Amino acid sequence: MTAADSGTGLLAPGWAGTAAAAETTDTAFLRALLDAEAALTRVQSTAGLAPAEAARAVTEAVDPARFDVASLALQARGGGNPVIPVVAALTRAVGEEHGPYVHRGATSQDIMDTATMLIARRVLAVVLTDLERCARALAGLAAEHRDTPMAGRTLTQHAVPTTFGLKAAGWRALVLDARDRVRRVRDSLPAQLGGAAGTLAAFTAYGAEDATALPGAYARELGLAEPVLPWHTLRTPVADLAGCLAFAAGALGKLAADVLTLSRTEIAEVSEGSGGGSSAMPHKANPVRSTLIAAAARRAPQLAATLYGSLVAEDERPAGAWHAEWEPLRDLLRLVGGAARDAAELTEGLRVHPDAMREHLGLTRGLIVSERLSAELAPVLGRARAKDLLTSLARRAYEEGRDLAELLTAEPELKEVELQEVDVSALIDASRYTGSAGHLTDRALERR
Amino acid sequence: MTAADSGTGLLAPGWAGTAAAAETTDTAFLRALLDAEAALTRVQSTAGLAPAEAARAVTEAVDPARFDVASLALQARGGGNPVIPVVAALTRAVGEEHGPYVHRGATSQDIMDTATMLIARRVLAVVLTDLERCARALAGLAAEHRDTPMAGRTLTQHAVPTTFGLKAAGWRALVLDARDRVRRVRDSLPAQLGGAAGTLAAFTAYGAEDATALPGAYARELGLAEPVLPWHTLRTPVADLAGCLAFAAGALGKLAADVLTLSRTEIAEVSEGSGGGSSAMPHKANPVRSTLIAAAARRAPQLAATLYGSLVAEDERPAGAWHAEWEPLRDLLRLVGGAARDAAELTEGLRVHPDAMREHLGLTRGLIVSERLSAELAPVLGRARAKDLLTSLARRAYEEGRDLAELLTAEPELKEVELQEVDVSALIDASRYTGSAGHLTDRALERR
Amino acid sequence: MTAADSGTGLLAPGWAGTAAAAETTDTAFLRALLDAEAALTRVQSTAGLAPAEAARAVTEAVDPARFDVASLALQARGGGNPVIPVVAALTRAVGEEHGPYVHRGATSQDIMDTATMLIARRVLAVVLTDLERCARALAGLAAEHRDTPMAGRTLTQHAVPTTFGLKAAGWRALVLDARDRVRRVRDSLPAQLGGAAGTLAAFTAYGAEDATALPGAYARELGLAEPVLPWHTLRTPVADLAGCLAFAAGALGKLAADVLTLSRTEIAEVSEGSGGGSSAMPHKANPVRSTLIAAAARRAPQLAATLYGSLVAEDERPAGAWHAEWEPLRDLLRLVGGAARDAAELTEGLRVHPDAMREHLGLTRGLIVSERLSAELAPVLGRARAKDLLTSLARRAYEEGRDLAELLTAEPELKEVELQEVDVSALIDASRYTGSAGHLTDRALERR
Amino acid sequence: MTAADSGTGLLAPGWAGTAAAAETTDTAFLRALLDAEAALTRVQSTAGLAPAEAARAVTEAVDPARFDVASLALQARGGGNPVIPVVAALTRAVGEEHGPYVHRGATSQDIMDTATMLIARRVLAVVLTDLERCARALAGLAAEHRDTPMAGRTLTQHAVPTTFGLKAAGWRALVLDARDRVRRVRDSLPAQLGGAAGTLAAFTAYGAEDATALPGAYARELGLAEPVLPWHTLRTPVADLAGCLAFAAGALGKLAADVLTLSRTEIAEVSEGSGGGSSAMPHKANPVRSTLIAAAARRAPQLAATLYGSLVAEDERPAGAWHAEWEPLRDLLRLVGGAARDAAELTEGLRVHPDAMREHLGLTRGLIVSERLSAELAPVLGRARAKDLLTSLARRAYEEGRDLAELLTAEPELKEVELQEVDVSALIDASRYTGSAGHLTDRALERR
Repeated sequence: MTAADSGTGLLAPGWAGTAAAAETTDTAFLRALLDAEAALTRVQSTAGLAPAEAARAVTEAVDPARFDVASLALQARGGGNPVIPVVAALTRAVGEEHGPYVHRGATSQDIMDTATMLIARRVLAVVLTDLERCARALAGLAAEHRDTPMAGRTLTQHAVPTTFGLKAAGWRALVLDARDRVRRVRDSLPAQLGGAAGTLAAFTAYGAEDATALPGAYARELGLAEPVLPWHTLRTPVADLAGCLAFAAGALGKLAADVLTLSRTEIAEVSEGSGGGSSAMPHKANPVRSTLIAAAARRAPQLAATLYGSLVAEDERPAGAWHAEWEPLRDLLRLVGGAARDAAELTEGLRVHPDAMREHLGLTRGLIVSERLSAELAPVLGRARAKDLLTSLARRAYEEGRDLAELLTAEPELKEVELQEVDVSALIDASRYTGSAGHLTDRALERR
Repeated sequence: MTAADSGTGLLAPGWAGTAAAAETTDTAFLRALLDAEAALTRVQSTAGLAPAEAARAVTEAVDPARFDVASLALQARGGGNPVIPVVAALTRAVGEEHGPYVHRGATSQDIMDTATMLIARRVLAVVLTDLERCARALAGLAAEHRDTPMAGRTLTQHAVPTTFGLKAAGWRALVLDARDRVRRVRDSLPAQLGGAAGTLAAFTAYGAEDATALPGAYARELGLAEPVLPWHTLRTPVADLAGCLAFAAGALGKLAADVLTLSRTEIAEVSEGSGGGSSAMPHKANPVRSTLIAAAARRAPQLAATLYGSLVAEDERPAGAWHAEWEPLRDLLRLVGGAARDAAELTEGLRVHPDAMREHLGLTRGLIVSERLSAELAPVLGRARAKDLLTSLARRAYEEGRDLAELLTAEPELKEVELQEVDVSALIDASRYTGSAGHLTDRALERR
Repeated sequence: MTAADSGTGLLAPGWAGTAAAAETTDTAFLRALLDAEAALTRVQSTAGLAPAEAARAVTEAVDPARFDVASLALQARGGGNPVIPVVAALTRAVGEEHGPYVHRGATSQDIMDTATMLIARRVLAVVLTDLERCARALAGLAAEHRDTPMAGRTLTQHAVPTTFGLKAAGWRALVLDARDRVRRVRDSLPAQLGGAAGTLAAFTAYGAEDATALPGAYARELGLAEPVLPWHTLRTPVADLAGCLAFAAGALGKLAADVLTLSRTEIAEVSEGSGGGSSAMPHKANPVRSTLIAAAARRAPQLAATLYGSLVAEDERPAGAWHAEWEPLRDLLRLVGGAARDAAELTEGLRVHPDAMREHLGLTRGLIVSERLSAELAPVLGRARAKDLLTSLARRAYEEGRDLAELLTAEPELKEVELQEVDVSALIDASRYTGSAGHLTDRALERR
Repeated sequence: MTAADSGTGLLAPGWAGTAAAAETTDTAFLRALLDAEAALTRVQSTAGLAPAEAARAVTEAVDPARFDVASLALQARGGGNPVIPVVAALTRAVGEEHGPYVHRGATSQDIMDTATMLIARRVLAVVLTDLERCARALAGLAAEHRDTPMAGRTLTQHAVPTTFGLKAAGWRALVLDARDRVRRVRDSLPAQLGGAAGTLAAFTAYGAEDATALPGAYARELGLAEPVLPWHTLRTPVADLAGCLAFAAGALGKLAADVLTLSRTEIAEVSEGSGGGSSAMPHKANPVRSTLIAAAARRAPQLAATLYGSLVAEDERPAGAWHAEWEPLRDLLRLVGGAARDAAELTEGLRVHPDAMREHLGLTRGLIVSERLSAELAPVLGRARAKDLLTSLARRAYEEGRDLAELLTAEPELKEVELQEVDVSALIDASRYTGSAGHLTDRALERR
C-alpha cells in the first residue's frame, strides 16, 4: 500500500510528489472512508445507539493497511461505488458482535461525501500554505521592484511603461483573491449524513430519539461543518470547491503566463531560479514550473465545468452526476495542489533582470511614451493634429530607424510652438512615465 | 434601434423577452459604454481636469439613439473592440471644443470592463428578484407539503419514503445558496480605470494631482465598487461572475431535473402550471419551463469554463483572453436571467399531486420500507439473516406479485419470534417512514 | 510494479479492472516509452546509424520491471516530462558502450507522443471490440422487438407510439457511428519523429543520409502510420482522438440515458440483467452499468475540450498545451474503454418487458394516438376544428378519467359525420399506430 | 428585418460583418425554417399527399419579410421552440384552403433540424473557401521562405534552428486537416424527417403508401443527405459539426498563437499586414486578426463540449439536450466563419522579416546549435563528457557574454582532439543547421 496505488504521477509532473498527491491517493481515500465509518459508530455510541465497545472496535479496525485497496476497487463495480465493499470488509473485520454497528443507518453517499470533504479540507490546507508562501514572495518582489520600470504590453505590443513592482503586486492580488476564496470554502465544508434518502429515518428506526442531532454531532466529531440539510443532491459544497479551485488555477495561470512571456529568449526579463533541462539540448534552461502551472490552468476550468454540471442531480441520489464528481474533484485538488507548490517555488526563486527591462523600454525608439506626448502636444496642437503628427512620426521612427526624440526635435511644426520650453528628453524618458505604479503597488501591499 | 439589435432570441426561448435580455442587448451595451464615458468626463471635471461644460456636453451626447450600433459593430473589427469606434463617434458628437475631454486618459478596456460591470449589476438585480420569488414559492410548497409522503428515489429506483416538503425545502436551499453567491458578487463588482497599461499615467500627464483617487471617484459616480488595482488582467470580477452564474444555473437545473422526472407520464406527481403545446400532438402538455431551464444548465458550466480560462491573461492586456469573455459572459447573464424567471414562474405555478405520490409508495409492494424492516428484524434475527430474509422476500414479492406485508405475516421464521408484537401494517406503511423529513423541512425553512 | 501503479480505480468503478485500464497504467506508459526508444535505436541500426549490438542491447533492456516507475515519475518534475529520466535510466541500463545510441537524435516529445499513440491504438482496439459486441447485441434486440410497441416519449411526455425495435436500432446506429469514427482514427495514428524542433537535423548530424526517411521507417517498425510532418505542435492526432472518444462516450451515454429512464420504478420497461445492490436497502437493484456509462458521458466532453484546446500550441513545442494533454487523454481512453465494456454487458444482458410497454400505451387513455385522430378527423371536420375538439376531449379524458375511445363514440358532432364508418377501436389501438417503425428497423439493420 | 436582428456583433468583432454572420441571423434561421416547410409540402405534393396548389402556395408564402421574427421569437417560449409559432403564422399566411398542408405529418424537430443543417451547409461552404484561401497563402509563404532560417523555440526558449518555410508548411497542414474534416462533415449533413416520435406514422395516416420514401425525397429536394433513420435523438450530425468546427478553430488558433508570439515587440519576425489601432496609443499596430482568432479558439472547445454533451438525449425528444444545441452551434459556426475569414486575410497579408529571424539566431551566442555540437563532440569526447562540456560552456557563454565559437576554439580539451579539423564557424552557423526543414516543406507542399 503506497502512494503509488493511485498513480505514480508519471503523466503528471505537475503534482507528482506533492503533499496534495499524498493526501489524495486511493489509500488516502480508503483511510478517509474508514475514518468516516469509525466516526459514525462513535457518534452513535455517544448517542446511546451503539455500545462503546463497538465504537472502540470499529475505531481500532480502520487501519487502511488491513484492507486491500485494489481488491476493494474491483468490488466497487458491483454497486457502482467503493463504500459498499468497504462496509462489507469493515464489518467482517470487526467481527460478528460489532458488525451490526458498522455503517448503521447510513447510506454509501454519507460516507463517500464525508470522506471527500475530509480530504478536500486537508488539500486546501496545503494549498493555503503555498498560496501564502507565494503571496509573501510576491510581496517581496513588489517591494523590491517598486520602481523598476519595464514595458507595459498590450496585445503583445509595447504600450506604455509600467513597473515590475506593479506587475508583482498584481500577481499577489490574484493570489490573495484565490486564498480568500479557498479559505472561505475550506471553512464551510460539511459532513454528510442523511441515510438512504436524506430523511435520517433509519437512525430513528434504530432508536435515535432525535435523529436530526446526529449530523451536527457527526460533523463535530470530524471537524467538519454541520449541514443544514443532507446534501446528497444539493451539491453546493462540491460546486464551491470547483469554483475556488478553478479560480486558484487561473490566478496562478496568469502568473505563469507572464513568467513564460518574460522568460522568452528574446525578452529574458525574468528567469526561473532553476530551469529544467532538455533531453536533447544541453544549453536549455526551460521555465518548467511555469509550464506545469500553465498546463494545470488549461485543465482546471473544464474539470470545474464537470463539477458545476453535477449540480444537476436528479432525485435523492442521481444515476451518474454523483459518480462523475469523484475523479474530477481529485484531479482539481491535485492540480491546484501542484500548481500552488510550483508557484511558491517559482516566486521564491524568481530572478529578475532590471537591465533587460530597461533596455527594452527603448525598443520602440521612444514610441512607448507616445501617449504622454499626445497628452503634452494635444493642448499645443489640438488633439487631432497631435495624434496625426505622432502617428506619422511613429511611422518614420520605424522606417528610418531613428529615435522619436530626434524626430520630435527636428519637427518644424513643433519648433514654432512652446514645446521648446518642455524638456523633451525628460518627456521621452520611459522610466519617468510609470504614472502611479509606485503608489498602486504600495496600496496593494497594504492588503494582508 | 430595438431589443432586436442583439438578437430576437429566435433560437433562445429560454431568455427571449426577459428583463435580462432587455438589459443585455447590443444597444444596452452601447448605452453602458456611453454612460461609462460620460461618467469619466464628469469625474475629471469634478477633479478639475476638464471643464464643466465638457462634462455636460458629453453627458448630454450619450444617447444611444444618436449612434448607429450596427455600424459601430462593423468598425469594431479594426481595433478588435467596440470602444474605439464609440469614442470616435462620441468625440464627433460633442464637437471640437469638448472632444478632447472624451475618453481622456483612459484605455478601451477601462470603458468596456466598466460597461460590462454596469450591465452585470443590472442583470444580477433581476436574477436576485426572481431567485427570491422562487425561494418564496418553494417555501410555500415546502410548508404546505411538509408531511406529504412520496417515494425517495436513488439511482432511478425507489429507495425509502421521503416527503415532498423536504424535496421542496432542498430546492429552496439551493436557490438560497445561489442567491447568496449572486448577491456577494453583485456587491463586489468594481469599476475599471487604469489607462493604457494600468498605471494611470495619462491622467497625471493630463494634470491630475493624485491619479490614484480617480478610480474610486469613478466607481462612486457609477455606483460600482472601488478596485484596489486596475484589473485589466486580474480578472477576479469576471471569474466571480462565472462562478455565481454557473452555480445559479446548476441550482435551478437540479430543480428542473426533478420536475422533469416527476412530470413523466408514468409518474405525474407534479405538473407545470401551464404546459407547452406541441406542433403535432394536441394532447400534449410539455414541461416547457423545466426544459428550458435544463437547457440553460447544460450550457452554463462550459461558458463559465471559458471565463475561468480567461483568468490566464498575459501581459497588461491579453491578445484574446479578454475578447473571449464578452459573448460568453452575456450568454451566461441571459441564460441565468431566463432560467431564474422560468424557475419563479414554474415554482409559483407548480401543481402537486399528493395522490399520485401516495399511490407510487405502494409500487414496490412494501419493499420501499425494507430498510425499516431491516432495522426492526436485525435485533430479532441477526443482521445478516435479516438482510438475507428480506432479499429473498423482495424477490418473491416481485416474482409472485404479492405484498411484502402478506409475505412477512406468512413467514414461518417470524411467527416464532416476537415480531407478532409489532404492528406489521404500521411498520409497512410507507407514509409513516419519513423519518425526520418534517423536522428537517422546518429547520431549512428557518433560513431567510 | 502492478496495475495499481497508476491507480487502483477506487474512485472509478467505471473503468477499474477493464482491459483499457490495464493498457493505460503508468507501467504501460513506461513500457510504451521504452518500446518507442528501442524501436528508435533499431531503426537507426537498420539505417546504418547505430551498431546492431546497440539495437539488441536497447531492445533487451526495455523491460519495465527493471525500472522504478515511481522514482521516474518524481524525477520527471525536473524537466517537466517523464522521458528525460527514462532516457537517463535506459542509458545507464545499456551501459557505456551502447548508451550513446539511446534516444540519439530524438527529443522527448518524439518518444512521449509515439508511446501515447501506441497506447491509444491498443485501447481503441479494445473499444472497437466492445462496440461491436454492443452493436451485435442491439441488432438482436432490434430484430426480436421489431414489432414490440411502446410509448414514444418527447419532453418526458407520451407522444405517439413507437417500437422497442426502432429504439434499439437507433442505439445501434449510434454505436456504429462511434465504431466508424473510432476505427478511422485508430487507422490514422502516427508515429512521432522530428528531433528537437521538428527538422530532423540531429539525425543528419549523426550521419543519416536521408533523415526524412526515418519517420516512415520508425512508424513501420511500430505499426503506426507515417506522418507527413513532425506534429509536435500540429496536434491533429490528439484532437481526432478527442473527437472520436467524446463521440463514443456520448453515443453510449444516449443508450444509458434511455435505459435509466426505462428502468425507473414507475416505468420498468427494461432492466439491467444484474443490478447493483445498495449498502442500505436490500431490495434495490440499481441500473449500475447505465449509471457508470452516464457518469463517463458527463465527463468526456470537457476532457475532449481540453484536448481540442491544446491544438493551440505555440512555437515548436508549447509551454503547457502539450503537458495538459497527457492525463485527459488517458482519462478519455479509460472512460470510453470502461463505458464500451459496460455497454456491451448491458446490452447483452438487458431484460425487456413488453407487457409493461404495452400497458403504458394505455396510460394517456388513448391520447397517445391523438395525432392519428387528428389526421383522420381533419378531412372530416377541418383541421382547426379537429384540433380544438381533440384538445377538449383530451382535457375531459384527463379530468373525467375516461377513455378517449368512449368520449369519441359519445361525441355528438362525430355522430353526424362519417366517422361511424371508421373502426374507432382500431383507430385508437396504440399498438397499431407504430407507422414505419418496422421498416425503419429493417433498413437500419442492413448496415454492417 | 436586417442582419441586426440576431445581433449587430457589437461584442463580436471576430464575426461581425462576415458571410457566416449573414448566413446565421435570426432571419436566416426563419428563412431556413420556412424553406424546410415549403420543401416538405412540395415533397408531399410530388408524392400525391398534397395538391400542387398547396405546394405552390406554401412556396410562395415563405418570404421571411412577411413574418415578424421578433414576435415569433417571443411566441416560441410557449412551446419551447420557434417552429410552433412559425407553423401557425405560415398556416395563416397560406389561407384556409392550403393551411392543412403546412407542416402536415411533421414535428417541430423535423423542421428545426433540417433548417439548421441548411444553414450549417452554407456556413461550411464559406469556411471551406476561406480555409482554401488560407492554405494557398500559406503555400506561397512556405515556398518563398523554404530556406529562411529562424529559431525553433520550445518551452519559450530557443532550441535549434528551423525555417519559416517549415513553420508555414505546418500551419498549412493543419489548415488542410481542418478543410478535410469540415468537407467530410459538410457532405454528410442530413435532412431530418420522422414525425412526432420518429416513426413517420402520421404520413401514413395522411395517406402515404411508403412513408419511408419521404425522408430521402425531402433530402433531395433540399440538397441534403438522406438519413438512414430519423435522428431526433441520434445526434451524430450535430456532434460531427462540433468536432470539425472545434478542430478548425484550434487549427487556426495555432496559427494565431504563433503569429502573436512572433509579432511581439521584442521578436517582430512577422507582422500583420495592417494592424489595429489603439484608443490611447497612436503608435500601436496590434495583431488584431490573430487576437480575434485566438479569442475564437479559446471559446470553441467549450461550445463543442456542450454539443457533444447533447448526444446524451433521452427518449424520442429530450427535455433540454436539444434546446441546448441551438445557440452554441450557431456560435461555433459564426466563430469559425469569422476565424477562417481572418486567417485568410492574415496569411494573405502577413509580412515576414527574415532579417529579424536571422538576427535572433545569434541571441544565444551559438548555443542554439549546441545539439549539433553535441553530435559532433560525442564521438570525440564521449557522450557524457560532451554534454558536460557543452553545459559548462553554455553557462560561461551566458555569464561572460562571449560567443560559443570563441569559447570552443579556446577550450584546451578540444585543442588536443581532432576538432581542429572541423570548420567550427560552419558548425556554429545556425542558418546551416536547419536539417531536413527544406525537404519536409517540399513534401508537405505536395499535399493538395
